[in-house]
Amino acid sequence: MNEKQLVGEKAVEYIKDGMVVGLGTGSTVYYTIKKLGELVKGGLKIKGVPTSELTAALANEEGIPLVDLKEIEALDVAIDGADQVDSHLNLIKGGGGALLREKIIANAASIFIVVADSSKVVNQLGAFPLPVEVVQFGVDMTSRKVACLGCVPKLRVREGQPFITDNGNYILDCDFKRIESPAELEMKLNMIPGVVENGLFVNSASRVITVENNEVIESVK
Amino acid sequence: MNEKQLVGEKAVEYIKDGMVVGLGTGSTVYYTIKKLGELVKGGLKIKGVPTSELTAALANEEGIPLVDLKEIEALDVAIDGADQVDSHLNLIKGGGGALLREKIIANAASIFIVVADSSKVVNQLGAFPLPVEVVQFGVDMTSRKVACLGCVPKLRVREGQPFITDNGNYILDCDFKRIESPAELEMKLNMIPGVVENGLFVNSASRVITVENNEVIESVK
Repeated sequence: MNEKQLVGEKAVEYIKDGMVVGLGTGSTVYYTIKKLGELVKGGLKIKGVPTSELTAALANEEGIPLVDLKEIEALDVAIDGADQVDSHLNLIKGGGGALLREKIIANAASIFIVVADSSKVVNQLGAFPLPVEVVQFGVDMTSRKVACLGCVPKLRVREGQPFITDNGNYILDCDFKRIESPAELEMKLNMIPGVVENGLFVNSASRVITVENNEVIESVK
Repeated sequence: MNEKQLVGEKAVEYIKDGMVVGLGTGSTVYYTIKKLGELVKGGLKIKGVPTSELTAALANEEGIPLVDLKEIEALDVAIDGADQVDSHLNLIKGGGGALLREKIIANAASIFIVVADSSKVVNQLGAFPLPVEVVQFGVDMTSRKVACLGCVPKLRVREGQPFITDNGNYILDCDFKRIESPAELEMKLNMIPGVVENGLFVNSASRVITVENNEVIESVK
């Protein structure tokens, strides 16, 4: 079993009957959703809240009943992957471009479980360029303000066109090399007019499930 | 001359040849733009950056050359109105729904001049409901998080439909009654996933032009 499958499947142990579960997006949480599908077929009663159309389609295929965020007060658990995880359980997310929805759902969940193969675990965040979602209006101005925080922002492009998020915004991929204080950086980014959200998840994850020396290990906040 | 005209026209004294000028939106800055139009006809050379389609149309009518935010590095001055101004020159803006563009332009200007009739001047911000721009996805969840900061958020509605900003977002009008610490509240709002921007302008205005006892008075940061 590969690492992604190991950690992805491990996460379902925290899902109990009656829970409302935020379903992340990506190649690791893919295995969580597949496994949840099996359990649902075996009688587990949950409702899923998808963070993307891709996940909604997969959950439908697997027979996991979905519910709209509008119809619920809160989520019991959210499970999602990450692009980087540090030893304080801080994350960089958003490589896939869905950071805003993922952050809203993680923030609305009582417990946020992160599943990450060993390649995602780092001592310090920053080598992975931090995705920052910005409004289209004044993007050059916003980009210059972001650059002042010590990075090289690069407008994300797909097939020759600026990448547009589900919310109609652009993404700046910001190469900080090393992020000394994720909490401070998150705050400074959010204070720039034009920045909608950023891929730093600080004090957000309750539990990180990963692999070390071929064994699943879990870190808890 | 009414108060709006008095303060609106006063602001043009700070505009010099060659400047790039952010042009706000509203019934007070209307007089600024009309007066600038006169001066341009008389030979003043400036470029305007409009914060709304309405202002762009008015500036065109008045013969003020406009420039796109994309084409410039920074603005020399921005002039705009406000819904409330306190004695520390902190503002509430966004009653018109254009707070995000107004904030980006104010933030990009070396000098930000606010024009406000005497009805806008208050000891403490908050009696005017604070506009908070939020993404459509998960708006109920975001609204509950905003409410936790001590207000009653109300989704802005126009003609029976949710009001949509130029950036495709919703507005929550948040009745805080009294805002004890605008800087703290601005930060806390911006840290909520789903909040794009809010109408608090803290440490943003360089100069406020208003009227007291029928006389124009100016406060400088």
